[in-house]
Amino acid sequence: MYRAPIEDIAFTLKHVAGLKPALDAGTFGELGEDLVDAILAEAGRFASEEVAPLYKVGDEQGAVLKDAAVTMPPGWKALYRRWIDGGWNALSAPEEFGGQGLPTMLGVAALEMWNSAAMAFGVGPTLTMGAVEALDKHASRELKARYLEKLVSGEWMGTMNLTEPQAGSDLNALRARAEPAGDGTYRIFGQKIFITYGEHDLTDNIVHLVLARLPDAPAGTRGISLFLVPKFLVGDDGTLGARNDVFCSGLEHKLGIHASPTCTMIYGDGFEGASPGAIGWLVGEENKGLACMFTMMNNARLAIGMQGVAVAEMATQKAIAYANERRQGKTASYGGPGMAPIVHHPDVQRNLLTMKALTQIARSISYSCAHAIDCARVSHGDAAHWRDRANLLTPLAKAFSTDIGVEVASLGVQVHGGMGFIEETGAAALYRDARIAPIYEGTNGIQAIDLVARKLPLGGGEHVHGYIAELKAVASSVRTSNLRGFGRTADSLDQALDDLTEVTRFLQKLLADGRSDAALAGATPYLRLFSLAAGGVYLARGGLADQTRVPLCRFFAENLLGEVRALNERVIGGADSLADAGKALISA
Amino acid sequence: MYRAPIEDIAFTLKHVAGLKPALDAGTFGELGEDLVDAILAEAGRFASEEVAPLYKVGDEQGAVLKDAAVTMPPGWKALYRRWIDGGWNALSAPEEFGGQGLPTMLGVAALEMWNSAAMAFGVGPTLTMGAVEALDKHASRELKARYLEKLVSGEWMGTMNLTEPQAGSDLNALRARAEPAGDGTYRIFGQKIFITYGEHDLTDNIVHLVLARLPDAPAGTRGISLFLVPKFLVGDDGTLGARNDVFCSGLEHKLGIHASPTCTMIYGDGFEGASPGAIGWLVGEENKGLACMFTMMNNARLAIGMQGVAVAEMATQKAIAYANERRQGKTASYGGPGMAPIVHHPDVQRNLLTMKALTQIARSISYSCAHAIDCARVSHGDAAHWRDRANLLTPLAKAFSTDIGVEVASLGVQVHGGMGFIEETGAAALYRDARIAPIYEGTNGIQAIDLVARKLPLGGGEHVHGYIAELKAVASSVRTSNLRGFGRTADSLDQALDDLTEVTRFLQKLLADGRSDAALAGATPYLRLFSLAAGGVYLARGGLADQTRVPLCRFFAENLLGEVRALNERVIGGADSLADAGKALISA
Repeated sequence: MYRAPIEDIAFTLKHVAGLKPALDAGTFGELGEDLVDAILAEAGRFASEEVAPLYKVGDEQGAVLKDAAVTMPPGWKALYRRWIDGGWNALSAPEEFGGQGLPTMLGVAALEMWNSAAMAFGVGPTLTMGAVEALDKHASRELKARYLEKLVSGEWMGTMNLTEPQAGSDLNALRARAEPAGDGTYRIFGQKIFITYGEHDLTDNIVHLVLARLPDAPAGTRGISLFLVPKFLVGDDGTLGARNDVFCSGLEHKLGIHASPTCTMIYGDGFEGASPGAIGWLVGEENKGLACMFTMMNNARLAIGMQGVAVAEMATQKAIAYANERRQGKTASYGGPGMAPIVHHPDVQRNLLTMKALTQIARSISYSCAHAIDCARVSHGDAAHWRDRANLLTPLAKAFSTDIGVEVASLGVQVHGGMGFIEETGAAALYRDARIAPIYEGTNGIQAIDLVARKLPLGGGEHVHGYIAELKAVASSVRTSNLRGFGRTADSLDQALDDLTEVTRFLQKLLADGRSDAALAGATPYLRLFSLAAGGVYLARGGLADQTRVPLCRFFAENLLGEVRALNERVIGGADSLADAGKALISA
Repeated sequence: MYRAPIEDIAFTLKHVAGLKPALDAGTFGELGEDLVDAILAEAGRFASEEVAPLYKVGDEQGAVLKDAAVTMPPGWKALYRRWIDGGWNALSAPEEFGGQGLPTMLGVAALEMWNSAAMAFGVGPTLTMGAVEALDKHASRELKARYLEKLVSGEWMGTMNLTEPQAGSDLNALRARAEPAGDGTYRIFGQKIFITYGEHDLTDNIVHLVLARLPDAPAGTRGISLFLVPKFLVGDDGTLGARNDVFCSGLEHKLGIHASPTCTMIYGDGFEGASPGAIGWLVGEENKGLACMFTMMNNARLAIGMQGVAVAEMATQKAIAYANERRQGKTASYGGPGMAPIVHHPDVQRNLLTMKALTQIARSISYSCAHAIDCARVSHGDAAHWRDRANLLTPLAKAFSTDIGVEVASLGVQVHGGMGFIEETGAAALYRDARIAPIYEGTNGIQAIDLVARKLPLGGGEHVHGYIAELKAVASSVRTSNLRGFGRTADSLDQALDDLTEVTRFLQKLLADGRSDAALAGATPYLRLFSLAAGGVYLARGGLADQTRVPLCRFFAENLLGEVRALNERVIGGADSLADAGKALISA
């Protein structure tokens, strides 16, 4: 069972990702450590005691579709009600619409806990928050007044409708269409797939944000607009009116997160005799829908990164607990009676420490990204710097965290031995759940391309080097600290950061030379290299702030950071052979 | 749908793993290339056309337990009947009992195909063949006469009963007991878990091989004996008699291989009013059961390694096919109409080439292990050398192949994007199935320990260096070949083999100094290092024999082989920090 790692979370927020200095500087007004600690403690309690116990029924029974209505697993509706009654949905939402306006860092930390307890639960509100942001930034005053308060409280939930069968990563191919009705509203027609929480019985209404094309819109992504399409129309007094012409025609049978309904949504097919055409309202400007959607996608990417952290944390807890219970064999280090708990075996320790280190690194990167988002919002004068920082870290937070989520969940199964393959143990379910996170909200391949093609050029190509310089300063502090417990950490970090600098400049040169295919060939190994190097520094920062954290940092530096060298070679020396061998993959 | 990669399989057998020179030298008597090719083609046809179509029903419906009887999925019994009628079970079994006595290499190649088509199908006969070997080597003439012919034909199947709830990797803790009945038979009592194909309706009888303790047997593994316990007693004329007191009390609900019944077996509990005690016969000598079991386990480990190869092959095929169909975005290399098939994207190519290279490496190592087993059996004078070689390669074949089976299956899901997470696509099922192979037949951690502690000392510590010298000779051939297509392959191989030599000597020194915990701390990274270095050489050998295989070799050498350097550091420099950080994992 999940036990929220409040101490690790609070420490990482405050001493690794920048919350403590920000609180001390009054960046967030009156917000102080006491309130932060109280919120984390209560979120941890809710996640452990209320959400986690409903994980299993969610996995086993899943969401069920009947007559276009989706029923959530037993207990989930009441759970959601308690959750919004606790104010959790509104945690970091804008105060103007009833939110608590707390830092994204806190929202992200709480999100980690919901997702550790049940990923299928955590993903729903992520979509709602995305909708809140998109509407807050881009919608008309009227739409905001009608929808935002209830989305902020969680009384209604929101969805994102992008994907169509032929249009996944490439939204150029989008076909859904919107026709002006002449009264300021539009009629939406088309099919959307893979719509998370597209239909369910947690809330009375569902607010869909839908990408579609206006008549005569330009081809490609410059002809896409964003529309708000409620499941039930909303009257001027806020009451629910007629059922809109949007319905769920199918639920996917998925590998994991069974309680999260993944819907095929049909717009404008004349559902239940409604006059055809789902009634929608334009959000933002015509043909600027993609920009609106990116607003919500960016933060959603960080939120999905938290799912990687969350599932890795849960898998690590489970594996450490099992390794302390299960006894097999003897070891030199165990002097007790009977067989040794397998946690005493060096090989098991290697797996567990790898799990712990990767989880902590992913958490640090993700919280640092949240910190940048917060600073961008409240800063005076350096907002552009922090926006660049958030943009730079977002693909790392999303892709690295979700990649290691899968790796750590797989190691977790392995530590359990035969029991790991049995569903009742729960390790296998994490391995199943974890696998979606590298895929949705932009596959990790897309994240890597985003990092190389759009984030390295930020600030004229200099922003990334400023970040690396900050990392190097921490590495220097490790060296000058003279703490013996760090072992060869300083050397390892220096080498990794030199590699990061070299490879970054190499890719920037390729981009400048117009050799984007060669640059993109190295995007995935580069993203991992970047994350490992930055992650090693974050572990070191933790060790400098708290000596009990030095051994994990040293383990990482002396065991896992060496991968950076291999990744360097892969990026710099690997593209030619990839292009050469890749030809044979293409069918005649 | 599976298409047996006959060409890759035949090429690897003949030109990479040593079959062609052996055939040319008459090592296997009259066996020639024509017959080898004919057998592979027919196995490929059977696997693709008969086994593969029953995969889905096996995964979806699984094996079902009712009233202590297990029913296999629809169609599986008829499939198994056609399979044994084709003589496939007897392929490499001893001729004395009706087998065809063909080389293990062929048996293993066919096994790859059954497992690619359906891992849950392939695993059953693996156990039967293990039982055949154990009985052939250790059983009395009488037991052989009564059981072997029907196990060789496949009319009956065999099982291995080792694990008990408290005794998994550590058989010291085994509790099942055997009491002499005074008439040369024994009565077996106890519970065994995780018994693959412990009960099913494919065959009329099931022959269990069971580890148990005699009264007053020494404690630990020196007090374990092996017994044959048939489901139905067998009369002198071979007819089936009374039901024995062994039954299946439970089936595990597993992550994958749902059609493979994983049984809890109860011995001697008075099933259906039988007089208590399952009737069993001693196999081999009293208290020497573990040696007998190791006979069957060694080859079973190679067979499980083939499951890793098999699932990786299937995942790779599926992903390449999907990447050629699915269209998204544009690339510089695609000049056709509409969106580019995603196989044109460099990042997708990297995933697919990684999958292909890892699969081919695992196949090469596994077939080379099979070759050594064959040579040990038919050799005149150098049997000990080949036995050492087989023993050295077995942990690599088992652990590396099954580790990459999981990695490749996970990449396969990723290449499919959102569709990969949907069960109907089939990529997710491979990801589920693959996860058991690193666990059963000795976890991969145990394999790594076996490699370091038991295989490095072979031949006074020199056998491994003889093997590395052979690998170095191939690397030299690459250098002197002057084929430009190899790029930097020769340099990469030299570096990897130098690393392999260095790390091997380092571990041998630790063992000689009695520092076994430090040696075992590096066992897992060492096994991977060894496999990557050897695998790179096998790819190069393939490239030397067939120039169309050079690009994949070069891709591997320039992109993936660099991991060896990082693994070297991990083994040589990682143990201290592991021991230091590991302490914090242990509960107070």
